[in-house]
Amino acid sequence: MTRIEDLDTPALVVDLDIMEANLRRVQDYCSAHGIGLRPHTKTHKSIGIARRQLALGAVGLTVAKTGEAEVMLGAEPRDLLVAYPVIGDAKVRRLASVAAVLGSKGKVTVSVDSLECARRLSDAAVSAKVQLGILIEVDVGLNRVGVSPSEAVVFSQAVKALPGLEWRGFAFYPGHIKSQDPEKIAALSRTVGDLRNDFIAAGMPPEIISGGSTPALFHSHEVEGVTEIRPGTYVFNDLNTVAGGACTLDDCAAYVLATVVSTSRPNQMIIDGGSKTFSSDKLSSGGPGHGRIMEGPGALFHKMNEEHGFVDMTNAERTFQIGDKVRVIPNHICVVVNLHEYVYGARNGVVEEVWRVDARGKLQ
Amino acid sequence: MTRIEDLDTPALVVDLDIMEANLRRVQDYCSAHGIGLRPHTKTHKSIGIARRQLALGAVGLTVAKTGEAEVMLGAEPRDLLVAYPVIGDAKVRRLASVAAVLGSKGKVTVSVDSLECARRLSDAAVSAKVQLGILIEVDVGLNRVGVSPSEAVVFSQAVKALPGLEWRGFAFYPGHIKSQDPEKIAALSRTVGDLRNDFIAAGMPPEIISGGSTPALFHSHEVEGVTEIRPGTYVFNDLNTVAGGACTLDDCAAYVLATVVSTSRPNQMIIDGGSKTFSSDKLSSGGPGHGRIMEGPGALFHKMNEEHGFVDMTNAERTFQIGDKVRVIPNHICVVVNLHEYVYGARNGVVEEVWRVDARGKLQ
Repeated sequence: MTRIEDLDTPALVVDLDIMEANLRRVQDYCSAHGIGLRPHTKTHKSIGIARRQLALGAVGLTVAKTGEAEVMLGAEPRDLLVAYPVIGDAKVRRLASVAAVLGSKGKVTVSVDSLECARRLSDAAVSAKVQLGILIEVDVGLNRVGVSPSEAVVFSQAVKALPGLEWRGFAFYPGHIKSQDPEKIAALSRTVGDLRNDFIAAGMPPEIISGGSTPALFHSHEVEGVTEIRPGTYVFNDLNTVAGGACTLDDCAAYVLATVVSTSRPNQMIIDGGSKTFSSDKLSSGGPGHGRIMEGPGALFHKMNEEHGFVDMTNAERTFQIGDKVRVIPNHICVVVNLHEYVYGARNGVVEEVWRVDARGKLQ
Repeated sequence: MTRIEDLDTPALVVDLDIMEANLRRVQDYCSAHGIGLRPHTKTHKSIGIARRQLALGAVGLTVAKTGEAEVMLGAEPRDLLVAYPVIGDAKVRRLASVAAVLGSKGKVTVSVDSLECARRLSDAAVSAKVQLGILIEVDVGLNRVGVSPSEAVVFSQAVKALPGLEWRGFAFYPGHIKSQDPEKIAALSRTVGDLRNDFIAAGMPPEIISGGSTPALFHSHEVEGVTEIRPGTYVFNDLNTVAGGACTLDDCAAYVLATVVSTSRPNQMIIDGGSKTFSSDKLSSGGPGHGRIMEGPGALFHKMNEEHGFVDMTNAERTFQIGDKVRVIPNHICVVVNLHEYVYGARNGVVEEVWRVDARGKLQ
């Protein structure tokens, strides 16, 4: 039996009670509103957690990269969405192979925003004798990828004409809605609803209208026509999720357990994690700090080198000694998980599960 | 035969001619000045590159974490320095095991700044029947770890009294000297020279005075008494090294090969790498951008999501199409390498070597 305090640090620990409540809360919300939940696995990158999401009722999984799709075959999803324009000869071939491996047990779908990308996928699908699902990626205001809503129907018709592809509908990513913002959500609903009507008028009712990320998750039912959402962060949550109002600090399941390794400077302690443990992602609100120290939130984790965390103790509630351990809730959990080999799931102080971060570094 | 353009992206590529010139230049500088070179392996984290540094004349290797020390046993260093306060029961036991494995073939040394740390190392060394070398970490102005110079002799005497430990001298890290700065280097030389004299006066002439990082590397001979330096970044260099004046853009060996995956927005292209490929480390100078696009430096890589790089094309020298590949020199190469599974070494357009990033994520 390994107790949390026996873990070698820095270690990424997940409170299983909180994680399970997070998973249930979002699945229950989706089920209550008849919305499919297709979790983005970018946050946990672990087959074991993906299996748990599917067992609770997720309709499928989302990945960003082809390498992640290959890994997530291990979770045996019935419907796997690559929410990324898959560009490159090797990548489209590999993705067609993923579809071949899934075979009749499931479907592989890609969200695309260019005919160039769709043509390559079509060629690869025909060569591999598979069908690839296609969602048209529509830009709803983030200005990242996606065709404009006015181009979506014509683009979809061009995609429909390509062999080996099955057009299934459209996807959007409202990453510009960082928190609960009724006006932005209403505008999004108008855009999505109008687009759905355009497709229906064109004789192409979408099977899938895929939206949603964690920040405005619980407003997904207010967006007209949405059939599924793709949140990732909700499994663990982080300080950014708290700041955006989609959860409270008590809903943050993941923290880095770190050790105080030096107190040689007055009013300062050094912990054994820096940018290679926490990433350099700042709070999306622009606030200071690289994480919240649960044992004394007045202690400001204000600066990092690669393996050193600098904590200003001027306003700390208590003192710490060399060897003391602290729990740090990170700003942005998705990039933190990607830096760790393992995630330790704990309950009542005891490590119950260890997940390998299977898709860590699967960039291609 | 794999050509660079056939690599699936994003891929971390190293120009072997430039890397080999970087390795030779620094080894030649050190040899000319009678300074030992103990490269910090945090930059490349690869056994293969560490072996090459040792073959060229490095006196040993530097690591930050115990897990990295375990990995770097594979390079068979004669002298392995853990330049980090090793705190934690498991860690000191594991480090004593590393020393036991090296046995008579080499030595393991730790830089420490607390008696607490030295005592734990002493206990572990005695238990494992090994000797651990000790360098006293001295703070020369970075205000990170390290005892103050005035405490160094007394602290060293206390450490010398502990069984299982061999006091070898002192280490410092001039990370506050970010570029060539004659006044700061002169001040550092006075501090280090005075401290050496204090040790000699106390009857403890140091075997090792270990300093140096990449930014002020070529001024190491101006620092009185330095016997070795521990630069890491010099193997590849990056935009921060260029900004600090320790190399030119032509000396940057490593770049991320990325593919243009979307051009759906006017004056913008999206490349297939974001913060999980490049890290979120900004330029230490505070300048804008997440890397320099070699094919068109006017194209500003100004923003990232996890897997998306946003490039503003307003001032770009040329246009790019979906599927085009670009080479991006990163701001801070050490954290970039840590995000990749492999590094591809290429010459004349052909991939000659593939290194696994062996110590990636070895945080403990």
